[in-house]
Amino acid sequence: MNNNAPIGIFDSGVGGLTVAHAIADLLPHENIIYFGDTAHLPYGDKSAEAIQHYSTKITDFLLQRQCKLIVIACNTAASVAFRLLKNYLADKKVPLINVIEPVVREVVEASFQHVGIIATKRTIQTGIYPATLQYLQPQLQTTAKATHALVTLIEEGLHHNKKVLEAMIEHYLSDPDFDTIEGLILGCTHYPIIKQDIARYFEVHRPNSLVPKIYDSTETVARRVKVVLETQNLLNTQQQTPQHHFYVSDYTAAFEQITATFFGQKINLAHFPIWEMPILDN
Amino acid sequence: MNNNAPIGIFDSGVGGLTVAHAIADLLPHENIIYFGDTAHLPYGDKSAEAIQHYSTKITDFLLQRQCKLIVIACNTAASVAFRLLKNYLADKKVPLINVIEPVVREVVEASFQHVGIIATKRTIQTGIYPATLQYLQPQLQTTAKATHALVTLIEEGLHHNKKVLEAMIEHYLSDPDFDTIEGLILGCTHYPIIKQDIARYFEVHRPNSLVPKIYDSTETVARRVKVVLETQNLLNTQQQTPQHHFYVSDYTAAFEQITATFFGQKINLAHFPIWEMPILDN
Repeated sequence: MNNNAPIGIFDSGVGGLTVAHAIADLLPHENIIYFGDTAHLPYGDKSAEAIQHYSTKITDFLLQRQCKLIVIACNTAASVAFRLLKNYLADKKVPLINVIEPVVREVVEASFQHVGIIATKRTIQTGIYPATLQYLQPQLQTTAKATHALVTLIEEGLHHNKKVLEAMIEHYLSDPDFDTIEGLILGCTHYPIIKQDIARYFEVHRPNSLVPKIYDSTETVARRVKVVLETQNLLNTQQQTPQHHFYVSDYTAAFEQITATFFGQKINLAHFPIWEMPILDN
Repeated sequence: MNNNAPIGIFDSGVGGLTVAHAIADLLPHENIIYFGDTAHLPYGDKSAEAIQHYSTKITDFLLQRQCKLIVIACNTAASVAFRLLKNYLADKKVPLINVIEPVVREVVEASFQHVGIIATKRTIQTGIYPATLQYLQPQLQTTAKATHALVTLIEEGLHHNKKVLEAMIEHYLSDPDFDTIEGLILGCTHYPIIKQDIARYFEVHRPNSLVPKIYDSTETVARRVKVVLETQNLLNTQQQTPQHHFYVSDYTAAFEQITATFFGQKINLAHFPIWEMPILDN
């Protein structure tokens, strides 16, 4: 494996750019190839079978581009396609990291009694967060809630309207089932954007002793990527300015405009029509 | 053409069921075939080229099912694919009705000076409503605004939380550019669901003399379908209980659950994997 090879990151759209940004921040010499499957966005509405099919083909694309490590930067894809892709990559020596496991391990280390999870419908339906948390900490109480409309809110920039954002956060988080949570996992790559607003909701509505700690997975995933590359001697040792490439399966100007929300700066998206090509055999 | 043949209706998802419902109400003896392209939902985020490709293939499917008339029950598809499909169907003698033109004609008959339009990003970007309105009434002032997040709001059932709904309606409709509109077109098949709430916003925030009339296209389209079938002697003359078939290109239980919101009652969705089949040659 070539140390100068890129890290491959994929998501259903541009939300996974929050993960790409955290990785680029922590590992400033690594090249990155990002693939957003905007032709099928959002995965939250798709069947598990469809998402598995899409994820496999995107992984083929990233392998063809010689990626040395692959990150599933999409909770929905991670929850329904991780084991499949792990098997798929087993004899290819390419490490696979998903956006769920690192944050779950971090939460388990805190030894809470009750943890909340908010994510898209599909991620919640799979039960992947409670199952993984309770596999590692069997007595942990979990409350998982689909908060799908927050995704659109952020993509449409409506989170800048505090009245709308606060009404929607209150709608979801005032659920009495969340009353005793000590930690809240943001199980969607969009939610780091409104992390401070979610924290403020709890600060306003809870006594200090009961304000839960908010976990987002982006920095945790970046740290995991660094550890895995170090362990496998795959860190890029060239002190270069990295090359980042961002591809989408369906291009619209609107996607390009909102990259700034997720990546911290506007980036150029290249259209790569993966679905109109023959299946690649790696 | 067989009078007992079904009416074909398609949309990117289940929102077009509001149109199907209006047609079933007005024409209770007509058979209906509905196709929701849930594998690619929402079209509002897709490129024009992608939507044209999807629409053509769905039309092929409806032709193969012998539909005697086809309704594009999706504003986004109507705005970018109507002319293409009209040419495509020209020598097949199958009338094509889109969800935009009938309501535009109704609004023009009211002889307003200023009209507002709310719809998805893609529909607004095409400029189809202002262009069609002003083609028929050149002096008409129009204000078109993308109100995309309302779609998700309705699909997630958040419109039942009046605080969230009112904050979002106010966010969009308090735009000063709407201050002098005399009519507002709901240019998305989801919006009839919140028509009363939109009307109430204006009643609360405007003097009586300035409350705009709200137009939704569902009943208007149904009346147009009836007129076209009458004119072409295609009305179903059998006093039967109609057979309705509802297909989606990707099935999830969540879609089936929200059919009640759009069709007035829960219906069964059948999975028809149109994208995994060879192209049909009609």
